[in-house]
Amino acid sequence: MNTLEEQGILARAASPGLARASSEKKNKAINMLADMLGERQAEILAANKKDISAGVEQSLSEALLDRLALNPARLSGMASDLRHVAEMNDPVGEIFDSSVLPNGLQVHKQRVPIGVLGVIYEARPNVTIDIAGLAIKTGNAVILRGGSETINSNRVLVFIVKEALDQAGLDAGAVQFIDDTSRTRVAEMLKMHRHIDMLIPRGGAGLHRYCRENSTIPVITGGIGICHLYVDRSADLEKSVQVIQNAKVQRPSVCNALDTLLVHDVIAPELIPLVIRRLSTDGVVFKLDESASKYFKEVEGYGIDVTPAGPDDFDTEWLSLVMGVKVVPGLEAAIAHIEQHSTGHSDGILTQDEVNAQRFLTEVDSAAVYVNASTRFTDGAQLGLGAEVAISTQRLHARGPMGLPELTSYKWVIQGDYQIRD
Amino acid sequence: MNTLEEQGILARAASPGLARASSEKKNKAINMLADMLGERQAEILAANKKDISAGVEQSLSEALLDRLALNPARLSGMASDLRHVAEMNDPVGEIFDSSVLPNGLQVHKQRVPIGVLGVIYEARPNVTIDIAGLAIKTGNAVILRGGSETINSNRVLVFIVKEALDQAGLDAGAVQFIDDTSRTRVAEMLKMHRHIDMLIPRGGAGLHRYCRENSTIPVITGGIGICHLYVDRSADLEKSVQVIQNAKVQRPSVCNALDTLLVHDVIAPELIPLVIRRLSTDGVVFKLDESASKYFKEVEGYGIDVTPAGPDDFDTEWLSLVMGVKVVPGLEAAIAHIEQHSTGHSDGILTQDEVNAQRFLTEVDSAAVYVNASTRFTDGAQLGLGAEVAISTQRLHARGPMGLPELTSYKWVIQGDYQIRD
Repeated sequence: MNTLEEQGILARAASPGLARASSEKKNKAINMLADMLGERQAEILAANKKDISAGVEQSLSEALLDRLALNPARLSGMASDLRHVAEMNDPVGEIFDSSVLPNGLQVHKQRVPIGVLGVIYEARPNVTIDIAGLAIKTGNAVILRGGSETINSNRVLVFIVKEALDQAGLDAGAVQFIDDTSRTRVAEMLKMHRHIDMLIPRGGAGLHRYCRENSTIPVITGGIGICHLYVDRSADLEKSVQVIQNAKVQRPSVCNALDTLLVHDVIAPELIPLVIRRLSTDGVVFKLDESASKYFKEVEGYGIDVTPAGPDDFDTEWLSLVMGVKVVPGLEAAIAHIEQHSTGHSDGILTQDEVNAQRFLTEVDSAAVYVNASTRFTDGAQLGLGAEVAISTQRLHARGPMGLPELTSYKWVIQGDYQIRD
Repeated sequence: MNTLEEQGILARAASPGLARASSEKKNKAINMLADMLGERQAEILAANKKDISAGVEQSLSEALLDRLALNPARLSGMASDLRHVAEMNDPVGEIFDSSVLPNGLQVHKQRVPIGVLGVIYEARPNVTIDIAGLAIKTGNAVILRGGSETINSNRVLVFIVKEALDQAGLDAGAVQFIDDTSRTRVAEMLKMHRHIDMLIPRGGAGLHRYCRENSTIPVITGGIGICHLYVDRSADLEKSVQVIQNAKVQRPSVCNALDTLLVHDVIAPELIPLVIRRLSTDGVVFKLDESASKYFKEVEGYGIDVTPAGPDDFDTEWLSLVMGVKVVPGLEAAIAHIEQHSTGHSDGILTQDEVNAQRFLTEVDSAAVYVNASTRFTDGAQLGLGAEVAISTQRLHARGPMGLPELTSYKWVIQGDYQIRD
C-alpha cells in the first residue's frame, strides 16, 4: 500500500494526462464504469454485505444502515447517473472572454481542470462512483477518503473505477483511494496542498469546520442549511401551506429542507393552525416561539407534537421532522431573523407583494433566495445543472449548487506577433 | 482604538449597507476621494515625509524608499486611477445564467459583493487608496493591514477615505485600518473567518506561504512569478531578442518579468550571443546553464556579467536584472523544464510553428500562456480589465489578473408561483 504522500504524487502525476484526455476517452471510461456496475454486481454486493454486517454488529442506526446499503436498483441508478454525466457537455477546453487588444494581441480564457481534487465523505458508497465520474468527466485527478462504514464496498468500487480508466486508455493513478480510515489520515490529507488543489468535504457541520480550520488547501464548505420561509401577509395561504409542507416533509433529512417558518402576525391566527393541522399528519414536531404558541391553542386534535422553542432551536439544522415557528411583525423583522440565524443556504419569501419580494431577494444574502417556491429546489439536478458536486455556502469560487464548470479553473491564452509592452 | 475583533465587527456591520449602495453613491465616494488626494496634498505629503525620514534612519534601501515615497505627481496618478475606477461598470447586481425551468421556476444568478475583504500589503501607500477604491466600487467592506514603513501615510490616507465615504452618505466603518503593525496582528487577522470572507496578501512569497498555511479564511495567493520564454527553432530571432529584452528589462522588479530563457539548441549558437550582447547593454547579469555557457565564448565585449547557473538558480524569482539561460533539445524538454520550475504565473513560446505553439498552449499549465509576446502583458490594465486587484496563481475562484468581477460572488435567485418539488 502506498503512503498518502505517495498517493498524492501518483495523483499529481496522472493529472496532466487526464487534463488533456479527449472527451471521447473520458466518456468511454465513464460508460465502461456504468457497464461494470451491472456486470460486477455480485462482487459489489458481496463486499457491501460485509459492510452491512459490520454495521449491524456495531449497532449503526437504521438510517445509517440504509445509507450504506447497495442493491441492484441502487447500482442501476448509479449507472444511469454515470451515463447521464457522460452525455453532458465537457466544460474542459471551453473558450470564453475572447478579445483582440488594440496592440493586436489575441486574448481569451480557456477552461482547464482544477488539477487534483480531494474529497472527504461519509457513509454513502454511491459518492465514490458519483465523484469518480464527475472527476473523470472534468479531467481532474481525485483522492478519495470515504468513511470506515463502507470500506469494503469502496475498495471494490475503486478497483472497478481504476479498471474502467485503464480499459479506456487513461491512467488509473488518476483516482486514488485512501485505504485507511483513521482520523490522522484526514489531518495529513488537509496539509497536502502540494498534491491537492481543492478540498471538498461532504459531511456534517463538524467536518466542514474541521476542514476550514485545519486545511492548507482551498476548501469548498457548505451543505449545512438552516433554511427559512417567511410568509408575508399578502401570501396565498392555501398555496403557502403546500409549499411549507413540501419544504419540510418531502425529504426532511437533507440540507435544503425547511427548518424555521416565519409568519407575518396579521395572518398568523389563520396560517399557524392550518400549518400545524396539515403538517402534524406528516409527523412534524413543532417548536413554537412564544410569539407563535398562542395560536396553537386554536388547534384541536390528538397526537400533535408541540414544544416551546428553546434558546438554540432557531440555530439548529433539524435534518428531521422538527420545525421552528415564529411570528414576526413584518418583512424587516423576518429579514433580521434570517440574517441572524441563517447559514446562508436557502431562504424564501411567500408573498403576492412584488415590492416585498424584491426587497427580500436583495437583502437576504444566502446562496439561494426564493420567492414563492419550496427551498427543496436548491439542488443541482432540480436547477438544471445535470449533475451536482456539492452545495457551497461559502462565497469564493462557487456558491450554491456546483455543476461541472465549478470543477474547472481557467488559463489566460495570449497570442501575438512578437508584441512588447511600452 | 478598537481591537481587531471590534474592527471585524464594524466591517461586517457596514458590509450589507455598502453591498446595497447604489453605483452613484459608491462612485461619488470614489470621486470625492480622488478630489481629496489633491486638496489634502500638503497633509498627506507631510505624513509621508515622516515615513521617509524614519525609513532613512532605519537605512531602508533606495528601492524601498522609492516605493514608499509620495509626491504630487504620484498623488495625481492615484487620483486619476480612482476616477477611472469610478467610470467602470459596476459588476454588482449583474444578472447572468438566466433560465426558465420546465416547472415554470425563473432562475438566474446575480452578482453580489464578496462581503468583507482582508488585504495585507507591504511598503506602498498607494495600495491603501487603490484597494479602498476597488472595495468601495464592488460594494465590499475591507480591513487593511499595511506595512510599518508607511504607517504615517496610511493613517492620513485612511482618514481621508473614511471622510469620503461619510460625505457620500456611506458608512465609514466599511474601511478599517489596522493601526498596529506588529506581526501578531497578522496572525490574529488570519483566523477571523467570522468577519473576513476573502484574504488577499500582496507581498513576497513568504507572506503568501504564511497566509496559506495559517489562514482559516480563503486566501488568494499569487504574485510570485518565475517566468519563462522558450525560443523555438522556427522563431524570428531578431524579433525574439526584442521580446526577450522587453520581458527582462522593461521593469525587472515585478512578478511578470522574465526569469529564465530556454533556447532550442539549433538556434542557440546564433541567438545566445545576440541576447547576451543586446541585454548586457541594459545591465543584465546572465546565469548560464552548462548547456548555454559554451555560446558565451562567442561573445566579445567588456563588462558583460556572466556566471554559471547554480543549483537553485532556475527556482529563483529574480525581481532584478538577472536572467537564467538554458539550451534545450526541443519543445518537449522546454515544457518539462517549465513544468518543473515555473510558479504557474506567465510562460511563453516564441515560434513560427503553429503546431508547436498549440502544443505549448495546451501543455503548459500557467495562469497566462503566451505565443510570441512579452510576459510583461500579464497585468490587469494591459489585458483590458481596467483595474487590477491582484494576480492569482492559484486555481480556485480566479486565476491570473483579477478585475472587479473577481471581487464579487453571486447568489441564485429563484422565483415561482408556489412550486413544490415532486
